[in-house]
Amino acid sequence: MKHITQKELLDAEKQYRTNLMNCLSGPRMAVLVGTTNGAGQTNLAIFNSTLHIGAHPPLVGLIFRPDSVDRHTLTNIRKTGQYTINAVGMHFYEQAHHTSARYPAEMSEFDAAGLTPMYSERLKAPYVGESTLRFGLKLKEEVPIQSNGTWLVIGEVQEIWLKAVLLKDDGSLRLDQAGIVAAGGLDHYYSLEFLAALPYAKPKM
Amino acid sequence: MKHITQKELLDAEKQYRTNLMNCLSGPRMAVLVGTTNGAGQTNLAIFNSTLHIGAHPPLVGLIFRPDSVDRHTLTNIRKTGQYTINAVGMHFYEQAHHTSARYPAEMSEFDAAGLTPMYSERLKAPYVGESTLRFGLKLKEEVPIQSNGTWLVIGEVQEIWLKAVLLKDDGSLRLDQAGIVAAGGLDHYYSLEFLAALPYAKPKM
Repeated sequence: MKHITQKELLDAEKQYRTNLMNCLSGPRMAVLVGTTNGAGQTNLAIFNSTLHIGAHPPLVGLIFRPDSVDRHTLTNIRKTGQYTINAVGMHFYEQAHHTSARYPAEMSEFDAAGLTPMYSERLKAPYVGESTLRFGLKLKEEVPIQSNGTWLVIGEVQEIWLKAVLLKDDGSLRLDQAGIVAAGGLDHYYSLEFLAALPYAKPKM
Repeated sequence: MKHITQKELLDAEKQYRTNLMNCLSGPRMAVLVGTTNGAGQTNLAIFNSTLHIGAHPPLVGLIFRPDSVDRHTLTNIRKTGQYTINAVGMHFYEQAHHTSARYPAEMSEFDAAGLTPMYSERLKAPYVGESTLRFGLKLKEEVPIQSNGTWLVIGEVQEIWLKAVLLKDDGSLRLDQAGIVAAGGLDHYYSLEFLAALPYAKPKM
C-alpha cells in the first residue's frame, strides 16, 4: 500500500492535490443541471455532487464550490428558485463534459454542446432531452459550509421523468440500465455494471 | 418516458418512495466508516454518502440521516473526533453490506462481518484491512440541515492509504482499478468500467 501523509498532500503541487482530493470521495453520477436566468437565457452545467438528503419530503442536495469563477447555475437558482437535474448517459457524456468550458452568460451551453432543451408544464427550468433520468426541483434550503465557503443547496423534487426500464416494482432504480454514467474527479468517466441487490441485513447472533 | 409527479411520489407506499429517492441521486462509492467509542470498542458501518468538499484544506463530507435508529458511528465521531473511510471492494462487498445489520453497541461489526481492523500511528480509529483505498479524518465541522434534521459531517483528511495501481502521475485515481464498488440506493451494488479521462474543456467560439 502507498501511504500519503497530510503534509505530503498539502505540499503537493496544486493540480495534483486537486485531482487526488476530487477523486478520493469516489465515483458519483454525472449530471447536468439546467436553469434559466429568468429572462429566457438557458444555462447547463455538469456536476457530480448530487446527494440524497431525504425521502419525505423528497430532497436532493448539490454542492457548489466557492472557487467556481462563473457560477451562473447558482445565480440562476437563487433568482428563479427552479432547476433540473439530468443524469448523463453514455451516448452523450462527451457533449455533457463540454458544458464545463467557460462560456459567457449570454451563451447557452445547450447550443454549445449540441444538447436539446425540453420543457414540462410544471417547471420553467429546461430539461436535457437526451437524458434517460431527469427530475425537476424547487429550491428549499441553502446551507453554508464554514470550513471553506462551499454551499450545500437542497431542492425539493417536483416531478421525475425516467425511461421505464430503469424503474423496478419496489421503486428501486437499475442505474446500469439506460447507460447512466458516473464521474470520479474532474474528468474521469465510468459506466456501471450491476453486481447484486443484496437482501436487508439481519444480525447473525 | 415514465412521468412521476410529486403527488404520486408523496402518495406512494413508504418503502417504494424510500427506494426511489435513495436511488434518484445516483451511484456513489460504497464505504465503510470505522470508529471507536473511546473505550476500546470498535464500530463499522456502511455508507454511500461520501462527498468532496475541498482540496485545500483537504475536506470530505458524509451525510448522517435523522432516521437511523442506532447512530453509533456519529456518536463515536462526536466523542473521539476521529474516523476512517474505507472504499468497499468487489472482494468483500457482501461482508460490508452485512455491517448494516443492527448489532448492539457492545458488539463490533468487524467481528460480525469478518473484516480485519488495522491501525496506523496517526489515528485511533480502525481501518478496514481489506480495503484498497482508505483515509483517516479528524472531525472539522458539523453542518445541520434544517429541512429534515439531517447532518452533513465534514472531516479533514489526515492521511491516505491506497493500492499503488490506483494512483496516476497527475494525482487522479483510476477508481475502476482494485475493484472499487459503487452503491445506488440502499442495497444495489455496481462495479465500474472505465470510459475515458476527457481533456479540460475549452469554449468553441
